[in-house]
Amino acid sequence: MRELGEFALIDRINAGRAHAREVLIGPGDDAALIAAPDGRFVVTTDMLVEGRHFRFDWSSPVDVGRKAIAQNAADVVAMGARPTSFVVALGCPADTPVSVIEGLADGMWQEAARAGGSIAGGDLVRSSEVVISVTAFGDLGGAVEVRRSGASKGEIVAVAGELGWSAAGLALLERGTVRATTELSRFEAKALETHRVPQPVYDAVLALAANRPRALTDISDGLLADLGHLARASGVSIDIDRALLADPELDAVATSVNADAPQWILAGGEDHAFAGTFDADAPLPPGWRRIGTVGVGSGVTVDGTTPNMRGGWDSFRGSDESSTPSPR
Amino acid sequence: MRELGEFALIDRINAGRAHAREVLIGPGDDAALIAAPDGRFVVTTDMLVEGRHFRFDWSSPVDVGRKAIAQNAADVVAMGARPTSFVVALGCPADTPVSVIEGLADGMWQEAARAGGSIAGGDLVRSSEVVISVTAFGDLGGAVEVRRSGASKGEIVAVAGELGWSAAGLALLERGTVRATTELSRFEAKALETHRVPQPVYDAVLALAANRPRALTDISDGLLADLGHLARASGVSIDIDRALLADPELDAVATSVNADAPQWILAGGEDHAFAGTFDADAPLPPGWRRIGTVGVGSGVTVDGTTPNMRGGWDSFRGSDESSTPSPR
Repeated sequence: MRELGEFALIDRINAGRAHAREVLIGPGDDAALIAAPDGRFVVTTDMLVEGRHFRFDWSSPVDVGRKAIAQNAADVVAMGARPTSFVVALGCPADTPVSVIEGLADGMWQEAARAGGSIAGGDLVRSSEVVISVTAFGDLGGAVEVRRSGASKGEIVAVAGELGWSAAGLALLERGTVRATTELSRFEAKALETHRVPQPVYDAVLALAANRPRALTDISDGLLADLGHLARASGVSIDIDRALLADPELDAVATSVNADAPQWILAGGEDHAFAGTFDADAPLPPGWRRIGTVGVGSGVTVDGTTPNMRGGWDSFRGSDESSTPSPR
Repeated sequence: MRELGEFALIDRINAGRAHAREVLIGPGDDAALIAAPDGRFVVTTDMLVEGRHFRFDWSSPVDVGRKAIAQNAADVVAMGARPTSFVVALGCPADTPVSVIEGLADGMWQEAARAGGSIAGGDLVRSSEVVISVTAFGDLGGAVEVRRSGASKGEIVAVAGELGWSAAGLALLERGTVRATTELSRFEAKALETHRVPQPVYDAVLALAANRPRALTDISDGLLADLGHLARASGVSIDIDRALLADPELDAVATSVNADAPQWILAGGEDHAFAGTFDADAPLPPGWRRIGTVGVGSGVTVDGTTPNMRGGWDSFRGSDESSTPSPR
């Protein structure tokens, strides 16, 4: 990468890409120009650090690129907005192979297309470990944004997307139980794939015509932690029905590594599923399943009891060991 | 910082801040929501890495925070847009003192206010060196964006803001000639201050009522390099009149360290001055001074000759030694 140089490399990873129609001016000027037909735009940013958020011995550069975009796109969709574009700042050691940068870029472009946008610009600098900083943009299309603070007593709590599978995949990788691909069970393979490339079900939110959620969040810190943020923002309590979270397939993976599937489901983040609250009077929209109920008061309980587990991710205090790649 | 934890620290650095009116939803939800009254928004992103783009033994955290925002705001203004808001992803070692994070945040908020915006959101993660990734947004207010590609033969090339002073400050720091503040000459003090906190003259662009530039860029890679980008994008040549770049004050600083002021002026970036081209028939707007002329052909010359110097910054090939803080 030192050989090729910054500008040549930027040209190379941008060559032949097709931009989303919202990208009015893409890479190459002092700044990009993006359409915001709603007159407002949604924006979120996440930084991923090698050894902390991903490891190249566990994930390919394409996987890492896809995940970096997916987790940002999920935050945009969690406001009820359609992703339009992304900018990416990338820090790399000077001896990073060009193929790694190209893989990251390819993965980013793939997931951006799946989410409905393209990569409008970026920056490329030298750093001592790979650092990926993604900023994502979305358009509300005239709709009201869906905030975490909109939940009310009596509403149904529902999720779209699977829970716990990314944590399961990470556990398999951490315990070194991953053998040749051919020896993996179907469920183990699914867990690994989900950890490497989460697949947020964007359409479960974006395709909603009626019965939109009253409050909505992306699950990135863990179900309990993120529902805790939502409950606090809304001034309500949430009770989860543990039976509705049962996943026999995930139990099978957990048994094979002597782990606890409910722990993965309740505290594992990174599946980037969506959690929302809905009117109790109308049927849940397609892709959503009920997991609990909104009540008065505060806090999140499971079957009426405060869960006795470490739930959620905090970048500095460290957190649930099973969801933290060890820094190298 | 490990003690306080991510969420408490984020609360602390966001407490009591006043947002720009364009920030409709600030920190605390899955994403922020920003007004884009023009129906489009300008966006740019830059990553700054400790030891490479700044050093805490040379600059205070407040200085670094200000510089991180200033260089992004300058890119927004270089499109002819008014900065409205910023998002910041920050990576820090776990043992980073909270006071450093607070200083960075204070500096960012100060410069955001000077540029006309506020910090609408961000991310805070653990990394092995301090990494600051800023994304900046701007609104065109119904005006046509000013691109690098708009220059035509016969136009005047002009700059707003001083050139070479940041490179001079860096040279003083690198040569270890910085003594106690009381021993610095007035010009040395100005060079250090410009290196630590560049002050882009945003208003030289934003306050323009008439005679707007036909092509415009921020000078971040160095005058020759950035005019080279502009000339290439416009399909023109540019000739600089060296006499118009003379700066006797900067010469005085250069003499004291046995350096070459024209080298600083032509190849030093980071002052974040603006360079643009203007119609020859109208007087230059306030704050702008003529430095050259647009011609046919390609390339940038000085007094008709191709300059024999290394001009500009490339993150990976390394570049002009005198504008690169040594990686630690």
